[in-house]
Amino acid sequence: MATQRILDFLATRRPTGPCLVVDLDVVRDNFRAFEKALPDSKIYYAVKANPAPEILRLLAAMGSSFDTASVAEVEMAMDAGAPADRISFGNTIKKERDIARAYQLGIRLFAVDCVEEVEKIARVAPGARVFCRVLTDGEGAEWPLSRKFGCVPAMAVDVLRHAKGLGLDAYGVSFHVGSQQTDLTAWDRALADAKTVFATLADEGIVLKMVNMGGGFPTRYLRDVPAAQAYGQAIFSALRKHFGNAIPETIIEPGRGMVGNAGVIKSEVVLISKKAANDNVRWVFLDIGKFGGLAETMDEAIRYPIVTAHDGTETAPCVLAGPTCDSADVMYEKTPYPLPLSLTIGDEVLIEGTGAYTTTYSAVAFNGFEPLRSYVI
Amino acid sequence: MATQRILDFLATRRPTGPCLVVDLDVVRDNFRAFEKALPDSKIYYAVKANPAPEILRLLAAMGSSFDTASVAEVEMAMDAGAPADRISFGNTIKKERDIARAYQLGIRLFAVDCVEEVEKIARVAPGARVFCRVLTDGEGAEWPLSRKFGCVPAMAVDVLRHAKGLGLDAYGVSFHVGSQQTDLTAWDRALADAKTVFATLADEGIVLKMVNMGGGFPTRYLRDVPAAQAYGQAIFSALRKHFGNAIPETIIEPGRGMVGNAGVIKSEVVLISKKAANDNVRWVFLDIGKFGGLAETMDEAIRYPIVTAHDGTETAPCVLAGPTCDSADVMYEKTPYPLPLSLTIGDEVLIEGTGAYTTTYSAVAFNGFEPLRSYVI
Repeated sequence: MATQRILDFLATRRPTGPCLVVDLDVVRDNFRAFEKALPDSKIYYAVKANPAPEILRLLAAMGSSFDTASVAEVEMAMDAGAPADRISFGNTIKKERDIARAYQLGIRLFAVDCVEEVEKIARVAPGARVFCRVLTDGEGAEWPLSRKFGCVPAMAVDVLRHAKGLGLDAYGVSFHVGSQQTDLTAWDRALADAKTVFATLADEGIVLKMVNMGGGFPTRYLRDVPAAQAYGQAIFSALRKHFGNAIPETIIEPGRGMVGNAGVIKSEVVLISKKAANDNVRWVFLDIGKFGGLAETMDEAIRYPIVTAHDGTETAPCVLAGPTCDSADVMYEKTPYPLPLSLTIGDEVLIEGTGAYTTTYSAVAFNGFEPLRSYVI
Repeated sequence: MATQRILDFLATRRPTGPCLVVDLDVVRDNFRAFEKALPDSKIYYAVKANPAPEILRLLAAMGSSFDTASVAEVEMAMDAGAPADRISFGNTIKKERDIARAYQLGIRLFAVDCVEEVEKIARVAPGARVFCRVLTDGEGAEWPLSRKFGCVPAMAVDVLRHAKGLGLDAYGVSFHVGSQQTDLTAWDRALADAKTVFATLADEGIVLKMVNMGGGFPTRYLRDVPAAQAYGQAIFSALRKHFGNAIPETIIEPGRGMVGNAGVIKSEVVLISKKAANDNVRWVFLDIGKFGGLAETMDEAIRYPIVTAHDGTETAPCVLAGPTCDSADVMYEKTPYPLPLSLTIGDEVLIEGTGAYTTTYSAVAFNGFEPLRSYVI
């Protein structure tokens, strides 16, 4: 997944220290694949996945909309050329003054999952559109989905009714099937819940208009994942099944699926050692770890492909760890990672599929190491 | 643990957004308590715990030495006024060019835990002192200690012998009993291992001079911890038991124990909600979370005391979560946190014991939220 452009950049520029290189051509291809797979859905790129200005500008120019988590992300999207009506404030947890600020900037679409949040919006963003997030079980997702966002469908009905009562536009329902979701039936289950909310409110004369189907679209790490086209078909079938001929406006919010496979991290092997003379597992220490951008290795959740110059030669299992003086800075230990026996201190390795959720997770200065640098080409 | 100075600062300055406030008076008291508890040990402050320049300057002026994890931390300590001979490069995982750079800056004390690292040091830091870290089990520590650092004692003998053979000064042994260690016997077990290495090498004519007893000294979170004096007595007894009348030079590396209780994070309640109308556990969302500085809540390891204006009134269990659009950004869920029923959206809360391992762990810009601000007073 390291494209020729990325390899050429690294060979020519020889950046020192760990860095992420993102190939915009891949982002462009991903955007088109989503457009093609779900031609009737609007694409709201999840800015949090990678807010690099070059990525936001490319997507804004291609007509993408944007899902944002904070006022800062709203401003980044606008700076990149997105008009306010293509931006959703998709965080269900917002300070009232941040809602007010977003409203001043022209934002009219807000996520909620409780009446308390609806009340904030009613006070400072009168008439805005709100969509209520419903809980899903996240089964089949590789990155853990807690119960943090959303409420049960019965409560979503109350929340949207309350919004309508306060003069807001009760606009729709959202869900998220869990990040790196590889079970295509997850959308079917979530859309069944969404339909329940639509139908219950319709009986009261409140007509919802939109389903925000969130993200969850995976990127390829070590295992193959279904292509965008397969997701599109599964989702369209589920929409047809639950909504019949009255399919509402739909939104998707790809983040990982848009940029994950567009980026590669270049890292250096700092040390290879053992803990005892007769150990059969080597410890391989890289100059990037859990606090330098690979936070998603938490609990060994995301397993990145690692490319070395010795690939194809004999491998043996390694514990893979980062460079900091923190004992928690270990990426893969419970399931050791096979790496070539001939790997040597000073070797460069490429960590693939790292275009999403790396640069911004990076700690600001842990152990004195600077945050992950990023090049977008 | 929010001192009057901290409370006055917050009341007067009214900083917006989450922030850490550190009281230097507490750091000064902690330094003196360590000096008094272990009068024969040199104190190497673990810079990674909190590298704020004001803290480093205070400690440098008080005569502290510094344990550093990177060239950047070496430079911070020197900028704060520490001479090179009071600085240890204590990370066992170093790039050869970083060792060379530290050597150029005058650093002569390096940590190792394998022959590969010894060889780097011999090449670019000739004649330097090295100490070899031995593995400990970390039992009794609240922050997980993996096998990442150190080697078994038998291998430490080989490593130090190798160092001597390459012209380095085989200077001593180090260990770390695990951060937030509340079992006073942990030092006894580790010192027994250290003594084994000393004795084995002495038989070969290699006389080690120093034991680096690392950190692990706890700070008070929700439960009382033994005072520095109790640690001092336990450690001195263990030294006497294992080394008799030939107690070597000793070093301690407090980080959390030096600054943990000196800092308080001010945060705001962004949202309080439920997931279903009949839920009995509230979700309380703060404007700081796992990615904004509270990384040590990972696996609910560190449980911070939280002070509200409603303390003393009836409480009920809450799930406590951060403000980002990341489902992993939940601090306490398995063991809900009791908070006052009268807690309200917009309330300020104080998170105590947050002087260590917060600011630098903070993500650089996750979800567009700026890194944790810090005021040292």
